[in-house]
Amino acid sequence: MADGKMAKRIVIIGGTACGPKAAARARRCDPGAIITLVEQGEYLSTATCGLPYYVGGVIKSRGAMVARGRGFFQDVLDIAVMLPARAMAVDSRAHRVEVLDLKTNRTSSLEYDKLVLATGSSPVVPNVSGKELKGIFTLSRIPEADAMRGLFASGEVGKKVVIVGGGLIGLEMAEAFIARGLEVTVVEAMPRVLPGLLDFETSAHVARELRRHGVKLLTEQALTGFEGDSRGWVSRVLTTDSRLEASLVLVAIGTRPNTALARGAGLAIGATGGISVNKYLQTSDPDIYAGGDCVENLHRVTGKGVLAPLGSTANKHGRVIGTNVTGGRAIFPGVLGTAVAKVFDLNVARTGLSEEQAQAAGYNVVTSLVPGGEHAAYYPGGREIIIKLVAESKTGKLLGGQVVGPGEAAKRVDVLATALAFGATVDDLADTDLGYAPPYNSALDPLHNAANTIRNRRDNLARTVTPMELKHKLDSGEDFILLDVRTPEEWQRQRFEVASARLLPLDELRRKLDSLPRDKEIITFCRRSPRAYQAQRILEGAGFTNVRFLEGSTTAWPYDADLVSFKDKAPAPEPSNGDKAS
Amino acid sequence: MADGKMAKRIVIIGGTACGPKAAARARRCDPGAIITLVEQGEYLSTATCGLPYYVGGVIKSRGAMVARGRGFFQDVLDIAVMLPARAMAVDSRAHRVEVLDLKTNRTSSLEYDKLVLATGSSPVVPNVSGKELKGIFTLSRIPEADAMRGLFASGEVGKKVVIVGGGLIGLEMAEAFIARGLEVTVVEAMPRVLPGLLDFETSAHVARELRRHGVKLLTEQALTGFEGDSRGWVSRVLTTDSRLEASLVLVAIGTRPNTALARGAGLAIGATGGISVNKYLQTSDPDIYAGGDCVENLHRVTGKGVLAPLGSTANKHGRVIGTNVTGGRAIFPGVLGTAVAKVFDLNVARTGLSEEQAQAAGYNVVTSLVPGGEHAAYYPGGREIIIKLVAESKTGKLLGGQVVGPGEAAKRVDVLATALAFGATVDDLADTDLGYAPPYNSALDPLHNAANTIRNRRDNLARTVTPMELKHKLDSGEDFILLDVRTPEEWQRQRFEVASARLLPLDELRRKLDSLPRDKEIITFCRRSPRAYQAQRILEGAGFTNVRFLEGSTTAWPYDADLVSFKDKAPAPEPSNGDKAS
Repeated sequence: MADGKMAKRIVIIGGTACGPKAAARARRCDPGAIITLVEQGEYLSTATCGLPYYVGGVIKSRGAMVARGRGFFQDVLDIAVMLPARAMAVDSRAHRVEVLDLKTNRTSSLEYDKLVLATGSSPVVPNVSGKELKGIFTLSRIPEADAMRGLFASGEVGKKVVIVGGGLIGLEMAEAFIARGLEVTVVEAMPRVLPGLLDFETSAHVARELRRHGVKLLTEQALTGFEGDSRGWVSRVLTTDSRLEASLVLVAIGTRPNTALARGAGLAIGATGGISVNKYLQTSDPDIYAGGDCVENLHRVTGKGVLAPLGSTANKHGRVIGTNVTGGRAIFPGVLGTAVAKVFDLNVARTGLSEEQAQAAGYNVVTSLVPGGEHAAYYPGGREIIIKLVAESKTGKLLGGQVVGPGEAAKRVDVLATALAFGATVDDLADTDLGYAPPYNSALDPLHNAANTIRNRRDNLARTVTPMELKHKLDSGEDFILLDVRTPEEWQRQRFEVASARLLPLDELRRKLDSLPRDKEIITFCRRSPRAYQAQRILEGAGFTNVRFLEGSTTAWPYDADLVSFKDKAPAPEPSNGDKAS
Repeated sequence: MADGKMAKRIVIIGGTACGPKAAARARRCDPGAIITLVEQGEYLSTATCGLPYYVGGVIKSRGAMVARGRGFFQDVLDIAVMLPARAMAVDSRAHRVEVLDLKTNRTSSLEYDKLVLATGSSPVVPNVSGKELKGIFTLSRIPEADAMRGLFASGEVGKKVVIVGGGLIGLEMAEAFIARGLEVTVVEAMPRVLPGLLDFETSAHVARELRRHGVKLLTEQALTGFEGDSRGWVSRVLTTDSRLEASLVLVAIGTRPNTALARGAGLAIGATGGISVNKYLQTSDPDIYAGGDCVENLHRVTGKGVLAPLGSTANKHGRVIGTNVTGGRAIFPGVLGTAVAKVFDLNVARTGLSEEQAQAAGYNVVTSLVPGGEHAAYYPGGREIIIKLVAESKTGKLLGGQVVGPGEAAKRVDVLATALAFGATVDDLADTDLGYAPPYNSALDPLHNAANTIRNRRDNLARTVTPMELKHKLDSGEDFILLDVRTPEEWQRQRFEVASARLLPLDELRRKLDSLPRDKEIITFCRRSPRAYQAQRILEGAGFTNVRFLEGSTTAWPYDADLVSFKDKAPAPEPSNGDKAS
């Protein structure tokens, strides 16, 4: 190792996001360090997250996909760039990396005082028959996007595209392909899209949006193989249930951390498959740091390891590593699993744990499902959002949240993410002094209402049924009254066409209490739930003992847009837990 | 007082926001309570914050200005409504309120177990000559808005309107009057608009936006009187510097809590003039609660009393009071001074303390002024925002923030407000896992950059000058180099036309170090500052010892839009404190 007076030698493997950020930060922290950046592809500092928009044509310029050229790193930052070059092996005892120059095919050896692994992740392609056929793509690098754009430009590709995987990239690419005039089918092995991010209630609205834009959605079907034509080009996608024609396929079922180099160096690997790092982003070898998609992160809610292959995390990692390899002591406190995506005209955002994830992690949860306007109802142009909030039953501690809708969702999730970082409770959230003016918000933000709904349930004021519970009751023919407390005009426009449904507008409820049976369960609903909650309280005040309201009412109803039928397929109702409804 | 078995008698004075919310919440908490709501105006539950948009015509329907009618409170909530009726006096010993029915002119006496004062605030009109003239308005209630709309409809009012007061309502109304085709002059006694909310650097951008839309802005001028014509209609506004023609005047210099009833009942009043309440919103009489504009709030950053006359706060108060008057024990933890406003095409938001307020409160502060795109630069349509962050020097604890620009400002301030509620530091903010996707954000949010700039200053990496400091140097003819490290194209388009300015693009800097004198101060700048910061580090790495960069660079420059001259009047540079620049 170099002594204090010699220039520190820093070698950074990987040039997409974490690597370049670490390099730039290291240079700003230490003007004298000898910094080398090694990248196996053709580009440095690429805008990987923008690739779906580049493929779809929203981003026109190829130049926009590369944030910084080689010249910037060399001329401005005085960083030696090896590109295209591949790090082949790390000799951690000798503090040396073998690097293969991919142009000259020559191997050289780089000595380091500090080594940074920012080797990223690679798309997973299942080992099925036909996976080597032409026309089957993944999307993680510029050349793949260029190839797809080339196909569109050539006009030589057919109209039918199948996307394997209904995750973030799959859905962003569905929009991109639709924009290119293609017929898009999304195949997802789980019962819903964005299964790792959203619960059913919010995911269903994303599915509806996809269908509204012509995307065909096939869930609970796993990829089994591909068939090709005589030219070796893909012609069909085979799943457990379907044979789908396709002249273009995108496989987007997830990514896997690139850890070969780390494993070769004997570094510890976490249970998630990412490189193990401490809070300084140091690996099990104190002179080797790692960051970006290749590492395992700490989840700040569960305290467990988690993969977080996102540019936002990679950039934060890069800054921490650049600080620490030059003698600093910066800390990366972990991630919250925050994600946001545009799915056609819907904003989709989430942070922390979904209800499903929270239950799997052993939490006893209480949730709320609350629609709202993005801003004051009387100010024109307001669009809807639907919030699902997840908290721990006993403590009211927030565990996560999901917001979907045409309205402002990202803001609400950023507020939730900030609250989660501090272990906030629903009380904390309800009390937050958020900015209020009619073009931006209501006097109480929908987030406040979502927090208050959980408080009202905790305080035994609000009693609710989830849409899944109601669906189950309807499907199993239970005897109860589904009490619509909206106006006759609203009932005319859209209603539950079921025998149990009955209209009794809220402003007549007190006068007509005698028209309701006291021995039957009553489930109230309105458009967004406040009237339904009010009706529940009125009925309870009048001595009715078995009344609940439908969470999210018609606005959040996930099964069918116009409520006149329930013919959509939907997953079985999730089990309710003790706190959820009573 | 009623015993546990008798119905609780709750009397609520004030029907705008806090009162109706408290009434509705009390009913939901206690179905059997006897609740009376007393309002002196004609309406309940009015959308007061929407009045500027109603006057301007953005909101067309008068109906939209009233959220809930009398019928809702009576029929749905079973609340007795006295309207129009005025509470004249409280006999706290006898638990009795005297109420004058304004229609019948009859007085009645209401007994209460719990009394709620939600008496609101009233616009301040200075006691100057001519204040009784016709055509001089304030804006706090629907009838005033109706009267102004009536004037526009009649066409009987001239074109010239003067707004006295450059606060939130003044600026919202400037936009409304411009929309009505009027010529608008805003007179503000302080040196800048929104003086209680923004520091100079951000306020200057609001002033520029006002001017861009034709609003004439006169600062540092106090109102001294009005002159009228023979019909008793206002014709001129007199200030310490001007005589302004006006056929319509809006006085919007602030509001004062309505505390006559509370004072009459002997309740404690705080130093701010608002009714003193504890965290349960109980006054000095435990059976009297108070909320909304009429009370003094706890500021969660300073721990001191503060007025917060906002609908958002009033609604939160109402919920807490409704809970507590029915036997609950809810807490209101205080406010952060969050505010957001639309000023033409600019989003203006702030929370916590401004730098000026923080210094006045005795904090030693460090700040950053950081422009950024609202989302990824390569995704089309991104608009600019400018963030000013204020933190405590020693601890890095966040004290407040301001965000202005055509881009998404409200989201960033809501994140800051959430962070402030937990006593977050700049490190906490920089580490927050905010949602990232190209249509919503950059990999590092501008908020992260603003926090990192403060960290870089703390860690002695970044050295900065504020725009005010640079302006002072330029004005006083100091000898230094103002080093533009942008490209020649950017220099051609817009530059500082001063003798000290010099172009040396960042990518040539290392090669041309010898062209720069080592004995002169160098101040670098670019468009948003990252290049300027990089240049500072390069120069320091090369042994230059007196280098700083201009915070916010050209984007945040508050004095002149095109930088070719500095003829705008601006306040004297604020004194820099020890931490700010070195």
